Amino acid sequence: MAKNLTTLVTSKTRTVEIQRNNPTVIIGERINPTGRKKLLSELKEGIFTIVKNDAVAQVEAGAKIIDVNAGVPGADEEALLKDMIYAVMDVTDMPLCFDTADNKALETALSIYEGKALINSINGEKERLAAVLPLVKEYDAAVIALCMDDDGIPPTAEARFKVAAKMIEEAGKLGISADRLVIDPLALTMGSDHNAGRIAIDTIKMVVEEFGVNITMGASNISFGMPDRAAINATFLAMAILAGLTCPITNPLEEEIILAVQAADLVMGRDEFGMNWIKTYRSRLKES
Amino acid sequence: MAKNLTTLVTSKTRTVEIQRNNPTVIIGERINPTGRKKLLSELKEGIFTIVKNDAVAQVEAGAKIIDVNAGVPGADEEALLKDMIYAVMDVTDMPLCFDTADNKALETALSIYEGKALINSINGEKERLAAVLPLVKEYDAAVIALCMDDDGIPPTAEARFKVAAKMIEEAGKLGISADRLVIDPLALTMGSDHNAGRIAIDTIKMVVEEFGVNITMGASNISFGMPDRAAINATFLAMAILAGLTCPITNPLEEEIILAVQAADLVMGRDEFGMNWIKTYRSRLKES
Repeated sequence: MAKNLTTLVTSKTRTVEIQRNNPTVIIGERINPTGRKKLLSELKEGIFTIVKNDAVAQVEAGAKIIDVNAGVPGADEEALLKDMIYAVMDVTDMPLCFDTADNKALETALSIYEGKALINSINGEKERLAAVLPLVKEYDAAVIALCMDDDGIPPTAEARFKVAAKMIEEAGKLGISADRLVIDPLALTMGSDHNAGRIAIDTIKMVVEEFGVNITMGASNISFGMPDRAAINATFLAMAILAGLTCPITNPLEEEIILAVQAADLVMGRDEFGMNWIKTYRSRLKES
Repeated sequence: MAKNLTTLVTSKTRTVEIQRNNPTVIIGERINPTGRKKLLSELKEGIFTIVKNDAVAQVEAGAKIIDVNAGVPGADEEALLKDMIYAVMDVTDMPLCFDTADNKALETALSIYEGKALINSINGEKERLAAVLPLVKEYDAAVIALCMDDDGIPPTAEARFKVAAKMIEEAGKLGISADRLVIDPLALTMGSDHNAGRIAIDTIKMVVEEFGVNITMGASNISFGMPDRAAINATFLAMAILAGLTCPITNPLEEEIILAVQAADLVMGRDEFGMNWIKTYRSRLKES
């Protein structure tokens, strides 16, 4: 079994250590205009009220890293992402994750940020690796690495493992150590392949066993098209944490998600005396 | 990795195959007078209404094996267990689990039962092994084997694994194959040791890796003394299923439990097209 690596993601004043023996780190995914009409229209007008509110709410709910996505169709993504980052930094000092496919927007974001950011994301595609890995190196960042490449998303855990190994190897060639890559096994929809959950979990196990790297994953695709999605997502997250998931990218405002993550940490012995669990329970009592 | 063994538990008309690639088998634990005043007082008067109702309700909720415990202080356990078994068989043809520390009651139960029963339980104590293993052999039964012995419950997964190995070895000496032992790693209270969940899960992994045997466990001790116990128990069950748990002994009338087990089976790819998940969802809708 490989050693458990530590990934550092920092802001000017905060350091988040992603590590398999620490409590699970939630990357808050809310600040993303995809499918969110109100947020989209605010961003088009250069208003950042929802962005700021979402940042604060996610941090209060337990997110330790805030993902920022400026994917507004037709917008100047470089300028918008920059404005959104300043808006978020205005209300929280939690470390950020820059979620963009636009290399120029990414470089500008990295250049204005004081800390080790998390980049979302690379994958095994040659062009993407060539564009982003030098930025990871230059800005001392960490990067989410998706288990897919120029041939698409491999159908088996073994093939996804190979893509992960390749990305770790390519990063290594530039002197980027494996602790700076956060592997995403990709969780597809069980509605189209009932083995989708198992494949993601098997990929996690294989990658962790071999490399000891940190693992992220979005946990909500898996249940698309099924009834009672929250229960499936919560169960899937807990099982993935046992397999080796360390920093899911998810919505901490969904109570089932937070409960599953904290209960999983409790079961894994990462919540001494259950203090986190009890604290969250008490704050829920106060709200209700 | 050892082969996944199949444990058969049968009634006159039903066969339950406990196997890691099948959906999780729930052993319904409700028919047990411990801490249940009304049931206790009915049993003292020789009334079996609650026993029958519990049997039916548990089967409707998804239990595939029904545990029967006649532990009424001061009662003739041999006679009572026999009466309770007949009461249960009167309303369901699901296979039964005989839950008694009284060897005479156990032998009588096995002698009147038409099928391969599950026995609850042996452990590594020499006296218990000497008394029960011959009955397992004679009546072609399966048996739950707890990871504890004359020295008590070992504090580490490694030591519990050794007790499991010893019980499998002792059974083997009598010609009882490992597929007839269902190992219980023992889940203690996290309130007294915050690693209790992890120790149980690590024990499961080690025992499954080495022997491929089936695994049972009660999942509710773990959360004793903590708030929001149902959420902890559900998460713990899902994680234990990923580790190798195949037949938890639990209360299927608790919705969180059934949801966690079915969601875990869905994630493990054991619920083709999500048919069980959708069926349960629909029946919940009808009830509400």
